Formats: sequence, C-alpha cells, structure tokens
Amino acid sequence: MARELISTAPGFDGAFAALLETQREAASAVDQTVAEIIADVRARGDAALIELTARFDRFTPESPEDLRIGPDEIAAAAERCDPALIDALKLAAQRIRAYHEAQKPADFETTDADGVRAGMRWRPVSAAGLYVPGGTAAYPSSVLMNALPAKVAGVGRLVMVVPTPDRVLNPLVLAAAHLAGVDEAYRIGGAQAVAALAHGTQTIAPVDKIVGPGNAYVATAKRQVFGTVGIDMIAGPSEILIVADGDNDPAWLAADLLSQAEHDAAAQAILITDDPLLARRVAQAVDSLLKTLPRADIATRSWQANGAIIVVEDLYDEAPALVDRIAPEHLELAVDDPDRLADKVNHAGAIFLGRFTPEAVGDYVGGPNHVLPTARSARFSSGLGVLDFMKRTSLLGCDADSLRRIGPAALALAGAEGLHAHGLSVGLRLNMPVPGMPAAPTGDPGD
Amino acid sequence: MARELISTAPGFDGAFAALLETQREAASAVDQTVAEIIADVRARGDAALIELTARFDRFTPESPEDLRIGPDEIAAAAERCDPALIDALKLAAQRIRAYHEAQKPADFETTDADGVRAGMRWRPVSAAGLYVPGGTAAYPSSVLMNALPAKVAGVGRLVMVVPTPDRVLNPLVLAAAHLAGVDEAYRIGGAQAVAALAHGTQTIAPVDKIVGPGNAYVATAKRQVFGTVGIDMIAGPSEILIVADGDNDPAWLAADLLSQAEHDAAAQAILITDDPLLARRVAQAVDSLLKTLPRADIATRSWQANGAIIVVEDLYDEAPALVDRIAPEHLELAVDDPDRLADKVNHAGAIFLGRFTPEAVGDYVGGPNHVLPTARSARFSSGLGVLDFMKRTSLLGCDADSLRRIGPAALALAGAEGLHAHGLSVGLRLNMPVPGMPAAPTGDPGD
Repeated sequence: MARELISTAPGFDGAFAALLETQREAASAVDQTVAEIIADVRARGDAALIELTARFDRFTPESPEDLRIGPDEIAAAAERCDPALIDALKLAAQRIRAYHEAQKPADFETTDADGVRAGMRWRPVSAAGLYVPGGTAAYPSSVLMNALPAKVAGVGRLVMVVPTPDRVLNPLVLAAAHLAGVDEAYRIGGAQAVAALAHGTQTIAPVDKIVGPGNAYVATAKRQVFGTVGIDMIAGPSEILIVADGDNDPAWLAADLLSQAEHDAAAQAILITDDPLLARRVAQAVDSLLKTLPRADIATRSWQANGAIIVVEDLYDEAPALVDRIAPEHLELAVDDPDRLADKVNHAGAIFLGRFTPEAVGDYVGGPNHVLPTARSARFSSGLGVLDFMKRTSLLGCDADSLRRIGPAALALAGAEGLHAHGLSVGLRLNMPVPGMPAAPTGDPGD
Repeated sequence: MARELISTAPGFDGAFAALLETQREAASAVDQTVAEIIADVRARGDAALIELTARFDRFTPESPEDLRIGPDEIAAAAERCDPALIDALKLAAQRIRAYHEAQKPADFETTDADGVRAGMRWRPVSAAGLYVPGGTAAYPSSVLMNALPAKVAGVGRLVMVVPTPDRVLNPLVLAAAHLAGVDEAYRIGGAQAVAALAHGTQTIAPVDKIVGPGNAYVATAKRQVFGTVGIDMIAGPSEILIVADGDNDPAWLAADLLSQAEHDAAAQAILITDDPLLARRVAQAVDSLLKTLPRADIATRSWQANGAIIVVEDLYDEAPALVDRIAPEHLELAVDDPDRLADKVNHAGAIFLGRFTPEAVGDYVGGPNHVLPTARSARFSSGLGVLDFMKRTSLLGCDADSLRRIGPAALALAGAEGLHAHGLSVGLRLNMPVPGMPAAPTGDPGD
C-alpha cells in the first residue's frame, strides 16, 4: 500500500526527491485568533483565562485560585493509578534523569599568553513552562521527557499547564509531574495558557522559556510569544526510518513502522532494505497488523499516504546518503553492525542500534529524550535536552598589561569600521588616539 | 539627558519597570513584501536574483555566474587593504578561533547496569549561510564572529552573501571572509539572498542554517524560512550595562556607554553605580564626548531616549538583581572584585571583568563572540557559538537481555497511553502481550 522505490530503477532520484518534498502537514490559519487570545490574556489576565477555559474546555473555574492544581492534588494522584504503572514511570524517570545528567555542560576559563582571561559559564533558565496536551494526547511519558531535562538543568521554577476538558484530568499525568518535580500546575490550555506563561497574570508569574507539544493553536501561540520568552522546536508529525538487512523478523519491523504511523495520519514510516523478499514480507506484515490495531484508521492513512519501502543494492554503501537526505526523527538500524552504519550517518534525531532496540523503548524508558526534530530539521537541530534550559555567558578579563597587548588591534578595527566611541573606550585606557577620529579625546586618560 | 533613577527614592520600582518595558524597536510591516520576494526566488531562481539585485542594489549582474564573488577576488582582497588592518584581523581571527575551539562539545556513551548502551553524539551542520550587511554596516569583525564558529564546528560548506550596492564592496570584508575560511561568496543581499540560501537556485546550492545580522527585510526573511533551515537569533538593538563603583574614570565609562549608543538610536546604555558623584561626572563626560563623536547624532538620540543612570546604596547587594531583570547583552563590571559580582549575576550575554576590559575590546579581539542576545533574551538564550553549527544525535542500544529488563515498563506505559503498535514493537520481541490490546499479535515473535 505504501509506495515502493528501488534504487537501481530508472526514475529513482525523482521518486526519492518527491518523497522528501511531500507536504505532510496542512498549514493552519489560526494566526489572528491566537493573536486575539494572547491580547485578551495580556489585557485581562485571570478573568480572560477563566472565560476562555469556560468556552474551550467546557467548565468554569470558580476563582483565579481555582485555576491552580494544588500541590496536594498533584501529590495524591499516584494513589489513583495502577501501582505497576507508577513503577514503570519511576523506572522511566530514573533512566531519563541519569541520561540527562550526563548532558550537563562544563564551564571553562583560561588565561592565555597575552594575559587575557576568557571563559564560558552555563546557568539555568530561572523559570520554565511546560505545556501538556489534554484529552487523547495527554501522555505521562511526555511530562517526564519535557520536565526532567529542566530539573536536571537546575530550573528553579517549573510550571505545568494542562487543559482539563470537562474538568477531567488523567491522574497518571499528575503522577508523572509529581515524579519529575513540577513546582506549579494550572488547569488551562490552548493559546491562553501559552499567553499566561509568557506574559503572566495576577495568579501566574511569567516564565522565561516554554516547551511542550500542542495543537495548531498552541504551536502558533508559541511562535507568537517567541522573543518575549524562549520556546522549544515546533514539533511536526512523527517519523521513523528503518534500515534493515534481510535477517530480520518482518513482524517486528512492521510493528516498528506502525508505532509511528499510529501517532498521526501525517506521520511517516520508511523502510530501507537490501532484501527485496524482506521488503515484501514487511509490507504483508504491516497489512496484517493493521487488521488488529485499535488505531488502525490513523495508521493506515499514514502508511498509505506517506509510507515507503526503498530497496537498495548495498545497505552500508547506499543507505547513509539516503538517511542524511531524509534526516529522520527516529532511525532504527536493524543490521549486524549498527555502529558502522551509525558512524556514516550525519543527520538523525535519535539512532536505535540493533534488532533489539525498537524505537518505542526509547519513547518511554531508554533514557534519551523522545522530543526530537522532525521534518528534516535534524540537519540543523537537536532533540530536547538539558542545554535547552540553560544559557551561556562569556567572560572576558583584561588588566592594563593585557589590554596594552591586544587593545591596539581593536582600536585599529574600530577606526576602520567608523565606530569611534568603540575606539575611544579602548584608546582612553591606552592613551592612544582613535584612527580617523577628527577631534582629540576630551576625557582624562587616567593612570 | 538620560533618565536618572535612585534605588532608595519613592517610585523606583515603577520607574525601573518602565525602563525595562520601553519599546525600543519599531515593528516593521514588511511581511508581505518579503513573502513575495521569497516566492519569486523559489519560482525563478537566478533570474529573480539578478532582477532584484538590479532593483535594490543598482547594478545588474551580467550572468548567473556573475552573482558569485570568485575565489581569486576573495584571495586578492587583502592586497587592497592597509597591512596594519590585516594584521589586526589576523590577531582577531586567531583569538576568536582559540576561544571557540574551547567550546567544542564532548560526546558520551555509557553502558548502564541494565546493559543498555546510551550515548550522545555531536555532528556539524553540513552547510551554513552567512549574511553580511552591505553599506555602512559592513563590518569585517562580524564576518569573523559569524564565520569562525562555523568553521571550528566543522561546517563543510560556508557560504557568504553580501549586498554590494552599486557593485562596491569593502575589501576588508572579503579579507575577513578569506581569513575565516568562507568557501563561497555571492554579491546578493536582502530577502532575496536569504531565499537563495534557504531554497537554492540554479547557481547556489541551499544551506541548512543561516546566520548573521541584517535589516528588517533580512530579519523577516530569516523568520519566514525558519523551519526549512535553522536560523540564529534575530538581533535587536545593542545594549550595555555598566556596574561601576566610585573609583572609575568618568570618561572611560562615558566612552563605554557611547560605544553602544553609537550603533543605533534604539540602542540602550545604562550605568549602575553606588556613587552619586560618579553618576554626575559620567553624565557630564557623556555630554562632553558627544561633542566630538562623528556618530554623535545617533548616540545622542540613543542616550536621550534609552540611556539611564541608576544610583544604588550597595553595589554588591543591589546590582545583581537589577542586572538579572535587565538581562543585558553586554555587562561591564568596573569594580574591585568583578568575579564576586559576576558570580551573583545569572542573566547576561557577555560579562567584561574589571576596569581595563571595555566592551569594545570584546567586539574585536577578546575571543568570545560579539553576536549576543538582546532585548532581555539573555534570560533564555546565548551568544553565537560552535554549538549553533552542530546538532546532537542520541544513541540507544539494547540487546535481548537488556530489552527484557527495561522493555516491560515501556510495554505497560504504551498500553496506558493507548499506543498499541508501540506496545507491539516491544511485546513481539519479548513475546509478551500488549496491555489493553484487543487482539493477539499475529506476528512471529522470533527467537
């Protein structure tokens, strides 16, 4: 049902290019609506949040205080959940935390031969907001994946917003928030929640960075508040690319392909193999599994519209270049020597090594983040991590001697660029004139 | 002329908040024009570039090949420059390169107690584009600051675009490009150059990331192509914040304040001091220097509209919180113990330590980057660096044993989230059913 491409067939280049260029996501024209919601929240604060929640989520918070999900409610949520699921969340949290601890960056400071001190220092963002979708896409795993990097980074105040249509909230989402160390939570969603996080209201203090997935309104609101706050990437539909030799169980690979296809009709699942027989058997296994999947409707639409099976002659020679052009969110390497293939690949959000590493294990408990670049953006961007909740400050320190050594070059370049106050600020300290500056400095050069 | 605030005076909080909220940059409504230019370049490629260059830069490239600035022209540019300036550029390039080498990130890979391999790998962006403004703002120092981090990161193809109004180009810009290792250069600018870099033309292959400053058309074009390619921050007007005790030469500080004010009437220069006498003398020194500065008109407008002098009682106690609220692009600490103050500050793009480190030395030859976050975005973002030209890929590897240890938790969570193909891709490998999945898996569980 998905398209099939053969690398040695005529027209392969054009067919592959067409696969890359398929527009999978419909543009949504909600800019104006979102702008009005943001303006309303900025102007009226909590009152706007209450009205918008009544309109979109079909319940009316009793008061501004009622917007908040209290710490007791968050702490008690785990008791309403299956203990086996809480244990699974705990294992996931522990593994995700350990992986992200290893991401923490190092500062440096050096003093060079000219006596100039130069350094770089990392500090956490002070406050971060985490958007958690409500309804069917309320995934506790996403709470862990978005919240834990922030806490590992040292973010002091982590605020979760989650819409609760009809005032119903998945207790497993709250349990995950509790495990991850979320500091505050509010039962609001949509563009109004993003506006509250970015600009603050009487009840909700503003944050500096907003992360987390959401629908078109949420994504558009994030774009609109970008600059006032930082945002993470705008997530597109999921993607999986599997590179597999003939020595694989077709059903395993079919399940892996469908694990992304079931997310969204716009998702994309692609298999590259050097075995035409495996290609046929995987296609059959996909059809067979689709008969049993609860989300078969979504998965079928994704597989038909965007799925592909590509047959090549030599996996190790041909696949890496194709992978780089696709720059997939998820890359499974179901081959004998996955490290050799991984090393040849430049552009992928996450790589899953070997036949026993299905992408889904990484969605939950592997440790690396499951928030990853989509739509070929792995060419230039990375999955969510600790660095997204930190920022660098550069440090520079001269004394009179070292400024005397490197300052004249700055003075010369400032003169050449016509920036005379730049030159003066060096020249006054060195008692040197600024090249090309008409009048002599009038300040006291000091000691 | 600039506003004066005293931290112990009534109304300080409101006055300080008003200072923070001053809108310095006028919104520009060029969205539609830019969208049309991008669409034109996408549709007609080189032909559109030639026509738009004729219209905006007042010369007509003779052919598509003529859009390119040849390698010989770039290599020969240094001969047309003052040798002292070439030496200054070389010193700058060497120092900037050394600083950025120290930024190169480390990969990691671990195998944990469960036998799971997890790692993180950095790779450079394959191709990057560097926008260099033409005309008065054609700064060779900016070429170095934008190009060198890319080359240190390992970017294979670095493409410079620079408008050359009337076909005139500053040879020092080309000399800087040559020193920095720019691989290709084109005499195009504006939104059309950004469009060519993002989408490619017959002559110009597309890049993956675009950096560099530009006017409103360039900034808007970068916003519009974001997603197709990565972009750096959208730079706002310059800012400097100086924290100074009474033991400073007022003329030095005045020159430092004006070194940012001379960039742009929308720039902002602020002094925080605990010495009211110094405050007065700096204000006088600013007035005096303004009489001699070639760019006095711009600097005066900036100082009058956006400048401020804030007097506090205790620098070490009061200044850090004010600094964090301003989150300045540049922070000078002209005090006895700059390290003690720097340590208390969380949000600043770059910190200049001590009385002999004017910000301007960092603009040219310090080593750290001069492309820094403006408009309070140092709360959540960083200056340009090597990491901006690299991206991370996570690595995960299970074998049959380790998947048996951590897989069941993934299976449980996939079931709870209603993502049954996710569950299947783990369950088939473990020969375990997916919780809540109606039908039994049909695949062969394999060995």
